[in-house]
Amino acid sequence: MPSPITSLQNPTVKRLVRLRSSRRLREGEGTVLIEGARETARALAAGWAAGELYLCPALFSPEAAELAPQLPMSAVTELSAEAFAKVSGRENPDGVLLLSRPPQERWPTLPPQALLVVLHGLEKPGNVGAILRTVDGVGADGVLILGRGADPYSPNVIRASQGSVFTVPLRQQDEAEALAWLEEEGFTLVACTPDAPRTFWQADLTGRVALLLGTEHEGLPEHWRRHESAVSIPMRGQADSLNVATAAAVVLYEALRQRQ
Amino acid sequence: MPSPITSLQNPTVKRLVRLRSSRRLREGEGTVLIEGARETARALAAGWAAGELYLCPALFSPEAAELAPQLPMSAVTELSAEAFAKVSGRENPDGVLLLSRPPQERWPTLPPQALLVVLHGLEKPGNVGAILRTVDGVGADGVLILGRGADPYSPNVIRASQGSVFTVPLRQQDEAEALAWLEEEGFTLVACTPDAPRTFWQADLTGRVALLLGTEHEGLPEHWRRHESAVSIPMRGQADSLNVATAAAVVLYEALRQRQ
Repeated sequence: MPSPITSLQNPTVKRLVRLRSSRRLREGEGTVLIEGARETARALAAGWAAGELYLCPALFSPEAAELAPQLPMSAVTELSAEAFAKVSGRENPDGVLLLSRPPQERWPTLPPQALLVVLHGLEKPGNVGAILRTVDGVGADGVLILGRGADPYSPNVIRASQGSVFTVPLRQQDEAEALAWLEEEGFTLVACTPDAPRTFWQADLTGRVALLLGTEHEGLPEHWRRHESAVSIPMRGQADSLNVATAAAVVLYEALRQRQ
Repeated sequence: MPSPITSLQNPTVKRLVRLRSSRRLREGEGTVLIEGARETARALAAGWAAGELYLCPALFSPEAAELAPQLPMSAVTELSAEAFAKVSGRENPDGVLLLSRPPQERWPTLPPQALLVVLHGLEKPGNVGAILRTVDGVGADGVLILGRGADPYSPNVIRASQGSVFTVPLRQQDEAEALAWLEEEGFTLVACTPDAPRTFWQADLTGRVALLLGTEHEGLPEHWRRHESAVSIPMRGQADSLNVATAAAVVLYEALRQRQ
C-alpha cells in the first residue's frame, strides 16, 4: 500500500473537505460521503459499493478495528491522523470514511399493512436522521421526502440515523406525485398536527397508513392538516409541541402496538 | 441606557464567553446562562430572576421583539451585533441572553399516580434536553439526574429542552439516595433496557412509576436492569437500539395512554 497521505494541502484531502460541506458538489458527482465504522458497515451491508475507502488506523475505535480487515484493500487510501481529522466532521473520528454512490432505488413491494412516513419540508438533519433511525427500529416500510428539504445523504443525517438511511427504503418525491401515488396505493393519510381534534390513540393505525410530518414551526400545509384522519398528540405541559422526531416515534410505536 | 458594548475585548463579553464554555465557572458563580427569547421567557415565567439581561435589538427575532418590552430595563445591557454573536452559542442568535441563578429547588407534592424519569449517566446535552422537553409534553412530574452526568443547565441542554428545563421539576441526586427515596415513596422502578423479556406495552404503567434510562452504549448497571419490572421496546429493524430520548418518549406516552 502507498504511504499515508499526511499533507493537509493534498488534493484528496481538499476534495473530501469540500464534499463534506457542499450538497451541490456531492449531488453533482453523485457521491455520498459516509463517515464512521458503523455507518460504513451498514452501507456496505445494504449493497452500497466500497467506492473509495479512507482509513486512519491510528484513530480506529474498537468497532473500526473489527471492520477494517473485512474491507477491500484495493479501495483503501490511508490518511495520517492529522489529515483524517481535517476531513472528518466529528469531534472524535474513528478513522473510517467511505465515498460511495447510492445503489438504484429499491422500493419494496408493500405489504397490505404497510406503514410509511412522509416528511414535508423538514430541514434539520438531526431530526431527519432521528426519524430514519426510529423508522428502522419500528420496522416501518419506508420514508417519502417531499420536495427538496434536507439532503438525506448529508453527513449529519447519516450520523443522526446511525446508518439507518442506508437500510430504510427512501424516496424523494414531488408533493403532488406523492399524494397521487399514496391514494392509488390505498393509504390512509394520517397528518400529525397539534390542532387535530382526534388523538393518535383514537385513530385506527392498522391498515395502510402514511404518517405525515411537517416542521415544528410551520407545521403542515392547510390541505394536509384538514384531512379527516389527522391526529394530535396530547400535550400536558407548558410547551405547545413536541420535537418532530419525538412525535414520529410516539405515533409509530402506537401503530406497532395496534398491529400486534 | 448606556451605549451598547461593541468591543470584543470588553470584560463583560469575555466573561460571557467563558461562562458559556465552562461548567465549573458557572457552578462556581452559581449562575446559569440562558440564551434565546423563548428560553428566557420560560425561565422568567418559572420564577427565575431577571439577573443580567443582554440584548441586541438588531438581531431580534419576532419572538424577541415581543418579549423585550416586558423585560425590566434596569437589568439590561445592550450589545452590538458583533459582540452578541461573540457570546452567542447559536448560528442565528435572536438577540436575547439572560444570566440568572436557579431558584430554590421546588420539588412538587407528588400525586398518587406520579410519573418520574430517572436518568443514569446520560452525558449528551441534546438527549437530556430532548427528554426534558418530552417530560413537559407528557405532563410527567419530574426528572431525577443520578450522579453528575450532564449539566442540566448547560447551554445545549437549555436549548434542546426549549426552556422546559426551567419548568420541569428537576433534582440531581446520588444514586443510592435516589433509590432509597423512590422505594420509600412507593415507586415502581421501570428500567428501560433492550434485554428485558417484557415489552413496555405489557407493563402496568398506571401507578407511581419511575422510568429509568441509561446511556445507549453502556445501558443501565446490572442491578437496575435485572429488576423484575424492566421493560424493552420491540425492535423490528437492523439497528439494535433507539435513541434514548426516543425511547423515553415512546414509554412515557404509553404511560399516559394507560392512564387515560
